[in-house]
Amino acid sequence: MSDCSAELAQKSLKDFASVIENKMLSLLPVSEGREENVIEAMRYALLAGGKRLRPFLVVQSAALFSIDNESALRVAAAIECVHTYSLIHDDLPAMDDDNMRRGLPTTHKKYDDATAILAGDALLTLAFEILSDEKTHSDAEIRCDLILALSRAIGAKGMVGGQMIDLKAENQSLQQDEIIRMQNMKTGELIIFSCEVGAILAKVSDDRRMALKKYAENIGLAFQIVDDLLDIEGNSEDIGKTAGKDIEAGKATLVSFKGVEEARALADELINNAVSHMDVFDEKSEVLKSLAKFVINRAH
Amino acid sequence: MSDCSAELAQKSLKDFASVIENKMLSLLPVSEGREENVIEAMRYALLAGGKRLRPFLVVQSAALFSIDNESALRVAAAIECVHTYSLIHDDLPAMDDDNMRRGLPTTHKKYDDATAILAGDALLTLAFEILSDEKTHSDAEIRCDLILALSRAIGAKGMVGGQMIDLKAENQSLQQDEIIRMQNMKTGELIIFSCEVGAILAKVSDDRRMALKKYAENIGLAFQIVDDLLDIEGNSEDIGKTAGKDIEAGKATLVSFKGVEEARALADELINNAVSHMDVFDEKSEVLKSLAKFVINRAH
Repeated sequence: MSDCSAELAQKSLKDFASVIENKMLSLLPVSEGREENVIEAMRYALLAGGKRLRPFLVVQSAALFSIDNESALRVAAAIECVHTYSLIHDDLPAMDDDNMRRGLPTTHKKYDDATAILAGDALLTLAFEILSDEKTHSDAEIRCDLILALSRAIGAKGMVGGQMIDLKAENQSLQQDEIIRMQNMKTGELIIFSCEVGAILAKVSDDRRMALKKYAENIGLAFQIVDDLLDIEGNSEDIGKTAGKDIEAGKATLVSFKGVEEARALADELINNAVSHMDVFDEKSEVLKSLAKFVINRAH
Repeated sequence: MSDCSAELAQKSLKDFASVIENKMLSLLPVSEGREENVIEAMRYALLAGGKRLRPFLVVQSAALFSIDNESALRVAAAIECVHTYSLIHDDLPAMDDDNMRRGLPTTHKKYDDATAILAGDALLTLAFEILSDEKTHSDAEIRCDLILALSRAIGAKGMVGGQMIDLKAENQSLQQDEIIRMQNMKTGELIIFSCEVGAILAKVSDDRRMALKKYAENIGLAFQIVDDLLDIEGNSEDIGKTAGKDIEAGKATLVSFKGVEEARALADELINNAVSHMDVFDEKSEVLKSLAKFVINRAH
């Protein structure tokens, strides 16, 4: 795989960041009144950096079906609101207890625990407000399809359930298949949904939707393995959070089962699979192919 | 106002409780796998009693428009999921720090803080999953209208914003109009939405929808005043939580501004207003009229 292709995706991602940030800001409620504290915390968390991987996947999957840009951007913003809410709540002292993320104080350190809990709640709620609005798509069936698929991806059998398992895993040892299931729930499902958005907006349920799903499953797991490798190999400055935290917490990961070499080989294989699933599309899928390569080459 | 009428509403509410509880249980995800802890906490919180006032309002407002029972019950269940999530999060140590609710340990005391945060998150998500499902209504426009109205009622400019103001109010003194605004956001908006559900499901936006909104505004504020009065007058056993907590926290309430007598008179006036708004409906609105009287006569 060429690093050049990965660099292209990295540049696209970087250019895209300000686009999605402006869209999210435009969708935030007005920060006035005595409730402004929670809106400021929402804004702080939304703007605290990040790769904007999920919204980028949304926009790229929508481009495969020539979807209207405004529709794609609104769904992308909603998904980043959901991702941000999950980070705010996961960072809380009662959960992973992280003080720093992406080199900045986490939301509860910048504000306080109560404000962080409420900011997360409001961002999750805002995501559904955005999706249900006719500005997102004129077809209400499509809006409901988006909401149903998203809510299933992030509920007790999806992202929230995955976080529950991950928290409990600090006291229990998970087997390899259980780790894969946990990571699929915790991060995989939302990445899969992000990639399926194009097909949902286009009302397409054929092999193209399945290809996007498979692409997402593969990059989702690869992404997680690279995260675990960075946790071992990276330094805290590069990854913007405390390195070695998983090891310290005694958490089993795929890397701890397989060892660094085998895990890296598996990640390579997953990325190759992801790229090959994009063959059902025309040249428009080049960005998603290069993005897969970026996932494995990233340093943080 | 006759206590007899209020007793009728109380009996209807009591009979209704098991109906809505069974419906909520049927909509919970299966409690299996390593994530079962969070699903058990969702179930615990959902079944920990309560008057089921909001789902009852939904079903009664739907009855005014002869809406299909299954539609009404599913929306009612979704709203009770939202109400329950808000109680779980509000009770957390970082928020109101309550150990008991309705005579039972709060969710974070029964489980732990992390599980309670996640159970609240999952219940909020489940509400949107229920509403977006075609089983709730065959018309996707109606499903989106429900989701949009709900998300606006409970976000940063609604319930969550109200809770933010209430938390900050422990350190700031609010004026009377600010207390009314805060209470309207914190509890009023969700009660208004519950009452509007019948009109939304019937696609009606005329004076009947406005009458339901006005009814809800009046009973919502009256409900809050009665809550404040109970906090002063009630004993902890009756109200199932610690009495005098607001006074101890130095919180201004309408009762602390107006005094007990004037506050009680205002609540009576609000209930009379609420009842008179129901005059645009036929005899089907008798239950909502008697419910208004129950609100003011309740002991907890």
